[in-house]
This record gives sequence, structure tokens and C-alpha cells, in this order.
Amino acid sequence: MENLKPMYEGKAKKIFATENEDEVLLYYKDDATAFNGAKKASIASKGILNNTITSMIFEMLAEKGIKSHFVRKISDREQICKKVEIVPLEVIVRNVAAGSMAKRYGLEEGTELKTTVLEISYKNDDLGDPLMNDYHAVAMGLTTFEELNGIYEQASKINEILKEFFLKQNIRIIDFKLEFGRTPSGEVILADEISPDTCRLWDMTTGEKLDKDRFRRELGDLVEGYTEILNRLQK
Amino acid sequence: MENLKPMYEGKAKKIFATENEDEVLLYYKDDATAFNGAKKASIASKGILNNTITSMIFEMLAEKGIKSHFVRKISDREQICKKVEIVPLEVIVRNVAAGSMAKRYGLEEGTELKTTVLEISYKNDDLGDPLMNDYHAVAMGLTTFEELNGIYEQASKINEILKEFFLKQNIRIIDFKLEFGRTPSGEVILADEISPDTCRLWDMTTGEKLDKDRFRRELGDLVEGYTEILNRLQK
Repeated sequence: MENLKPMYEGKAKKIFATENEDEVLLYYKDDATAFNGAKKASIASKGILNNTITSMIFEMLAEKGIKSHFVRKISDREQICKKVEIVPLEVIVRNVAAGSMAKRYGLEEGTELKTTVLEISYKNDDLGDPLMNDYHAVAMGLTTFEELNGIYEQASKINEILKEFFLKQNIRIIDFKLEFGRTPSGEVILADEISPDTCRLWDMTTGEKLDKDRFRRELGDLVEGYTEILNRLQK
Repeated sequence: MENLKPMYEGKAKKIFATENEDEVLLYYKDDATAFNGAKKASIASKGILNNTITSMIFEMLAEKGIKSHFVRKISDREQICKKVEIVPLEVIVRNVAAGSMAKRYGLEEGTELKTTVLEISYKNDDLGDPLMNDYHAVAMGLTTFEELNGIYEQASKINEILKEFFLKQNIRIIDFKLEFGRTPSGEVILADEISPDTCRLWDMTTGEKLDKDRFRRELGDLVEGYTEILNRLQK
């Protein structure tokens, strides 16, 4: 698929139409970007690792009752997914202060939080995906309070499932980013991916970062970290 | 009072202890600052105008059932207020997109909003008073969800009262910033000031800005704008 013209090309994936108008094909690229595209690289096999890990996680979530756009993995880099209209929000769940939250509020990375944090930002590269609150999102017509409540409820459930899931692999899930999509019937379901590109995953024992911060912060080989995640999930 | 040592000195006010340990004296300075202190000036009589306008507004709010720290105005630049512990949040109410919200989300200033926006930011000059959501504030131990709900309820009531109040003066209140304080008994009440320093106030007919944006953006004489507000309120 990679030489055909996609319907949409994002930083890490391409989306192609399929013969079934209710479905799309997602192709996972090797491109890595950070800091809103300011840092770029191509990392051989990253797309294969993320497609495999996301597919495993979405299948596991489906077994636990979380609906998503994921239908099936059809090759190393390809998934069939339900076609959805993406809600233009990044939904971030934080169990520990890290990344942009730590920086924004002057917290040391790793600071424990008195409550789990749910956070939304406006998916808009030109504006740098700015943080917003529910009122901003509704005031701008991006969503409704009702839709947001459904999104937060799903995000919280997913967090409980992922915390337990990764704990079994001796990994702590520090934070992660979700995206949601609207189906033609108006249902809002989990979409996009859940992979070491979109989660912070720290080894419980050593604290070693096994996620995209290896790339963002030159903390070690990215493929090695992602492969370690995959190996633990496949145990 | 201005030569005594204050308990606290902010950008626009000084706070002094009084003989009554439950009360403080607020002294309104002529200092004007913008962009987190990057732009500074001393504007003769600004302190007098803001003390007078804030006192009128807090008295009017009290008549409408809104409790605040304000006790009484005792001179041109001085108020007696209840001593409170300030909740370290700026609470912003927005009826129309302007200022930092317009900039952050790429909206034209003056854009109508589909819902009134309530917004909090972390009162921290070193960090540039960053935007936060309820989860961030609670996760960092700055407040509780219960306290925040009380604050939002009061902020919404204050907005309804101020919209009507300014409309009678042919002024549209675009947005404004509130601060709240905890009394020794743990009640959370309105504190700080409500003045053209902390509100965006546009003439309904001409759209002329009568507030601190005159200083921030060199839109005309600040004292002239604030005096126009005061004259309309005194009619």
C-alpha cells in the first residue's frame, strides 16, 4: 500500500480507503517525530513494532469491553479499522507527572499526583496542540459536554485496564494519549493507536524508559525499547 | 501607608496588617504591568481609579448576595478587607474570545463562543501563570474538586450580575479574572479586585476598549478609559 495515494497521511501513519466504505486501512510508517515535528527521523521497523503492539492492546481492550476502531491486523504494517471521524482532541491520561505537565507546572518528572489527571488538547499542529479545558472545546464547537463525558469515562476505564496489563509485565504506565472517533451512527469510540509512541512506559524495577522519550531525549535505542515492550507482551 | 512595610506586595497592590488580626489594608498602587511583568509603567491615579471602581463593584455584588473579602473603602487608595488565604488560581470567565484564549486557539478576537468559558490558571509568575484544568489543580494539591465547584458556581453568578450591570452602562464585559480566598473557617469567598485592570470592557456601540488592553497594546490613554468606566458607573 505504501506507494498508493493515501486518504490522509499523518506523522506516523497513512490511511487508505478500502473496497468496504465503512473501513479504512492503516499503514504504520517508520517515521518518528517529536516536538511537533521539529525533530524527525526514520527508524527501521518502528512501524512494524507499533502496528503489532497496538493490535495486541486493542484486541486485549476489546476482550475487556472497550470498543475501538480496530478490526484486524492484516500484515506487518497494516490494520483494517472502522472508518471514523476523529474528534480533534488529544486525550491524555496521567498517573504520574512527566513530560509537558511536569514542565508546564514546574514539577519534577516522576512526582506522584493526588488524583489521576485527564487532559485534552486541541489537535492542531500549527498551534502546537495547545492544552484546553472542556469549556474551550465546547465553546469552539469541537465537541459537546455529553460527548466529553463519554470520552472521559472510556479513558478512565482504559487507564485501569492498561495499568493492570502493564503491571503484569513489570512496567508502569506513566501517561498516555488517546484519540477518539465518531462512527456514522454518532457513537464515539477509541481510535488511533496505543503504542510506545503514545505512552510513557517505565520499567518498574529499574525505571528505564521504554517509550518514545528514548527518541525525544536521546535516551537509548528506540527499537530496543519497543522490542522489549513487545517481548514482554508476547510472553 | 505607602511607606510602611507591607505584608505582601503584588504588581498592583500592597497588603498591610491592621490592628484587627482578621482584617488587612489593601493599598492600590499606580503601577501597571503586562505580559507577566515584561511591560511596566507607573500611571498617575490608576490606583485611585481601581480602588474606587473595585469598591463600587464589590458593594454592588454584596447587595446581590455575593460575599467577598471587601469590608470598606477608607481612602482614595485604601480598602479594609477580610484577611483570607488566596487560592493560587486565577479564575477567568469569558463571554467572547479575546486575549490569551484567542491567541492560544487561533481565534479572531471577538469570536462568539458556543458556551461561556470558565478557565483556571496556576498563579505562578515564574511559570507564566500557565493554564490548567481541574484535574491538574487537584493533582497538585492546590484545591479540591468540591472547592472548585463552589468557585465555578460563584464565578458564573458573578458573570450574570456583571453582564447586566455593565450592559446598563452600554459596556460589554468580554472576559474577567477573579481570585478567591479561604477564610479562617474554610469558606471560599471572592477576593482581590474587579476593575478595568482585570476585565475586558468594550463600549457596546463603538467597540472601544476601555480596559487594560489600552496599556498592553498602546490603544490610547489608560486613565481616560478607566475614568470613562468610573463616570458611567457613577451616573
